Amino acid sequence: MLDQGHKSISSGQLADFVGVNPSLIRKDFSYFGGFGTRGVGYDIDDLVKQIKKILKINVMHRVALVGVGNLGSAVLAYPGFGVYGFEIAAAFDINPQKIGRRVHNVVIEDVSELVSLKKRGIDIAIVAIPRDAAQQTADDLVKAGVRGILNFSPCHITVPRKLKVITIDIAMDFARLPYYMPRQAGA
Amino acid sequence: MLDQGHKSISSGQLADFVGVNPSLIRKDFSYFGGFGTRGVGYDIDDLVKQIKKILKINVMHRVALVGVGNLGSAVLAYPGFGVYGFEIAAAFDINPQKIGRRVHNVVIEDVSELVSLKKRGIDIAIVAIPRDAAQQTADDLVKAGVRGILNFSPCHITVPRKLKVITIDIAMDFARLPYYMPRQAGA
Repeated sequence: MLDQGHKSISSGQLADFVGVNPSLIRKDFSYFGGFGTRGVGYDIDDLVKQIKKILKINVMHRVALVGVGNLGSAVLAYPGFGVYGFEIAAAFDINPQKIGRRVHNVVIEDVSELVSLKKRGIDIAIVAIPRDAAQQTADDLVKAGVRGILNFSPCHITVPRKLKVITIDIAMDFARLPYYMPRQAGA
Repeated sequence: MLDQGHKSISSGQLADFVGVNPSLIRKDFSYFGGFGTRGVGYDIDDLVKQIKKILKINVMHRVALVGVGNLGSAVLAYPGFGVYGFEIAAAFDINPQKIGRRVHNVVIEDVSELVSLKKRGIDIAIVAIPRDAAQQTADDLVKAGVRGILNFSPCHITVPRKLKVITIDIAMDFARLPYYMPRQAGA
């Protein structure tokens, strides 16, 4: 909405956009002190800043990508990371034919270089490799000082309790659809 | 666990696996009638069937993919869809150089062929195209009789209220990480 020149937004507009009740919007924001002005709504610029601060994405995070296959390449090409303060600063693969190639301003490195992550200030990794190798890679990433992993491999990976893993299983996202779909016309 | 030869699972094991309280597992299942036996746990095979039925993924769904770029190709190569009863039965692109090519057993068709979806029994679509074209494609899919859309384009798309859209914004999944990450050692 900022891009479209808007300065403020009401809880009603926000509610319509995300599909919840306006009172829930106001209640949720009130937990963090409340950012709105009655009758005016929320200053969008301020609201974005406050939410980024709450989510701890008000600082840049340098990210490593492990696995530059189709999915990894899609991740490298993805335009939306900057909005949330993420920069893909390194990419790794085991395929000698890929190592040394530049893809979207990142030169692909051998996975043995993962050990250098900490001194390069990289604390988050994206795992986009076949499931057989995912746990070993996660172990290597933990040793390399990573604190958070976004796992695209269709498997469960285990890390020490104080680290955070979010697994994105595309098929599982998919599996949420049928429950909400209307019955077929005529069925 | 079935793959590993297990026959039953306790609410405690399930709870550990997903990171919630065992009582929540039992309470949630009880809403659907309760499938477990006290002191024995849940018969895994039966539990999987019951959950599939609740989620309406106990029947096969034929799916169309729109956009065979890096992300679309990753989706075509993704091994996990069959588990949830999805079959990618068609793929579409606008690039004449891609049309007619066979990728993972699917021949890429021109997007003008989307009109044929309904008679081919395809009721779900995956949208993996640049954001500029996403809304137009969604409109075409609605006209073609699709009832559910999984949207990978980093934008909001609007469909008639009775249809269901799930938008997967990789960057937004990412943005969930920092909140949960431990502070840096020494920070």
